[in-house]
Amino acid sequence: MKKIRFGIIGLGNQGSSYVKFFSEGKIENGVLTAMCDIDPAAIARIKEKYDIPGAVFFDDHKKLLDSGLVDAILIETPHYFHPGMAMDAFARGIGVICEKPAGVYTKQVKEMNEAAARSGVPFSLMFNQRTNCVYRKMREMIADGAIGKFQRVTWIITNWFRSEHYYKSGSWRASWEGEGGGVLINQCPHQIDLIQWIIGEMPASVRGFCGYGKWHDIEVEDDVTAYFTYKNGATGVFITTTGEAPGSNRLEISGTRGKLLCDRSKGADMKLWYYKNEQDSDEYCRTADNMYNAPECVWTEVETDGLNRQHEGIINNFANAMLGLEPFYVDGKEGVRGVELMNAMELSGWNGGEEIKLPIDEERYLKELNAHRAVSRYKAPEVK
Amino acid sequence: MKKIRFGIIGLGNQGSSYVKFFSEGKIENGVLTAMCDIDPAAIARIKEKYDIPGAVFFDDHKKLLDSGLVDAILIETPHYFHPGMAMDAFARGIGVICEKPAGVYTKQVKEMNEAAARSGVPFSLMFNQRTNCVYRKMREMIADGAIGKFQRVTWIITNWFRSEHYYKSGSWRASWEGEGGGVLINQCPHQIDLIQWIIGEMPASVRGFCGYGKWHDIEVEDDVTAYFTYKNGATGVFITTTGEAPGSNRLEISGTRGKLLCDRSKGADMKLWYYKNEQDSDEYCRTADNMYNAPECVWTEVETDGLNRQHEGIINNFANAMLGLEPFYVDGKEGVRGVELMNAMELSGWNGGEEIKLPIDEERYLKELNAHRAVSRYKAPEVK
Repeated sequence: MKKIRFGIIGLGNQGSSYVKFFSEGKIENGVLTAMCDIDPAAIARIKEKYDIPGAVFFDDHKKLLDSGLVDAILIETPHYFHPGMAMDAFARGIGVICEKPAGVYTKQVKEMNEAAARSGVPFSLMFNQRTNCVYRKMREMIADGAIGKFQRVTWIITNWFRSEHYYKSGSWRASWEGEGGGVLINQCPHQIDLIQWIIGEMPASVRGFCGYGKWHDIEVEDDVTAYFTYKNGATGVFITTTGEAPGSNRLEISGTRGKLLCDRSKGADMKLWYYKNEQDSDEYCRTADNMYNAPECVWTEVETDGLNRQHEGIINNFANAMLGLEPFYVDGKEGVRGVELMNAMELSGWNGGEEIKLPIDEERYLKELNAHRAVSRYKAPEVK
Repeated sequence: MKKIRFGIIGLGNQGSSYVKFFSEGKIENGVLTAMCDIDPAAIARIKEKYDIPGAVFFDDHKKLLDSGLVDAILIETPHYFHPGMAMDAFARGIGVICEKPAGVYTKQVKEMNEAAARSGVPFSLMFNQRTNCVYRKMREMIADGAIGKFQRVTWIITNWFRSEHYYKSGSWRASWEGEGGGVLINQCPHQIDLIQWIIGEMPASVRGFCGYGKWHDIEVEDDVTAYFTYKNGATGVFITTTGEAPGSNRLEISGTRGKLLCDRSKGADMKLWYYKNEQDSDEYCRTADNMYNAPECVWTEVETDGLNRQHEGIINNFANAMLGLEPFYVDGKEGVRGVELMNAMELSGWNGGEEIKLPIDEERYLKELNAHRAVSRYKAPEVK
């Protein structure tokens, strides 16, 4: 049977880990035929470590795309390059799995999405956390009405501790010009995607209270508390940092029919709990003849299918879907949602916690981002 | 041995529960000698239910204070009356245990505190939650440096579900004129006191995002998300509502040396957990030569002394302290802190989440509160 021929653009930490998948035969219907990095040392490291028969190396992503060797690429370059490289692939009819985040700002990501739509080329994002059985189950239960009318989401996701050594390991790290943000754009894109994917809805407004270089010698945010409001009046809180240890990872989503609680903090013995109200709490509120009671509630640990294929799952699905064997699991065009949420938190943070209504004013965002880039410590190299 | 002679002003739910303590002999060095309510039906209910030998009933608190029958009073009237009645007692050299909150607005509470200080009369507040072994332990551990430099507090205290029936049970309930607020002033004064008492510090600024009549047919707030900043840069989130079931009660306080976690939500099997870092995380951050690790951390369930005497403990302590047998546990003058925090959240809520710096502008608060009182559904009866 035919296999999808993959290329990998960018051979840093993440790109290398995908080379490993292919070298270990973990991508059933895919084969790695080409790789690219502007840094010869990165290519040398891959050659030393892995034996990928027949794979060709490039120092320019366009040469790789023009080589005729690939049906699809994995984009594993710094965030700012994602949309442009994806569009270069779409223009050549080459499929794309783009690393998260989809890009740094929505304007750029929307152009990419429009190009993807026009081209009709398969396009996915590395939202590997969407393959996690717990998050899938939460999304499914909410869609099925398990919590009733959505009232509140709280995600404390503070287990992203990073040392100064981490930040000093690359001059592009944690800079406006190199990454376009801090903990929101580097560590949290999965949770920021999941919070809208699980609930099935974007906030209507966002406030972000951001600490810039609060715990580290960096220029971008390493501490965020965000407050969301939703169209139906529900509210949300999202708390993250790279400056706390041991952090927490606790997500609760509640509604009139009950609550879903997922605690994955260090030492937590909880996986996914469902608190189910016997009666809708809104209805109970209106009809109860007592003062202090609440609806009867039972709680149970939720069983899931246990499957959690992560990055491997996303790449296998993409190859299989390109071959018509199964549907595409992640539509790359959905990546813009997380970028919009991040941008809104950042924009609010730059402006003293201002309430940012969605959809975001993307011209304003880009203008303010560029003002930060202009004074960034990091100066990006020219890329062809 | 001499016993402290107590009077109770206000014989509603709370006042009646203290009558019960005395009737059951639970206040070792105290005796109930006088009670007061403006409502004859309330007095009749007490007379029917309890036999308090020799106790005299009044329909006017000043008559009770002037009777010569009491050494101390418990003030159990609506919140607005607390400071005035306390000052009436101080002026007569009569000790006061005031129900929480200390009052509705700081200006009023400060006048009370000044009067208390001038008079030198014993003054306490019913901060019964301060007797809880878990909260005492948290305060003690933090004071002893268990978490190192304070970084973050998050309290999700959403288990205050109330029905419409509750709100309709008294026309004064949940009105600006009757209570001066909603979930913040009625349900949450304990947590709002504890959050500053346990940490040992007031926030430097407060934002409150309040839903007014969001889940009920009331004019005051029944849903609040608040964001705090502290002088050293630490931040906090406080989430509460009377519209959610089953709510949560989860408090975490973290710092560079570790984290304290207290989960008392329905179904939670956790009491108090301590996550202890082997090394200060700030120091680790600066000196580590790895990118992704955090300090080694061990977590244990914390043992406490198990004592939790609540209201009974506060009243017994007050009687004993008046007799010189032990120190006063709660200094009534500390009640202003919680009131200031509540006022700041409310003021911010009225003003679209404006950042309110502490100390609060108390004239502004009173002016805006009075504007709300002027259009309140509830019209307060004249009180002599």
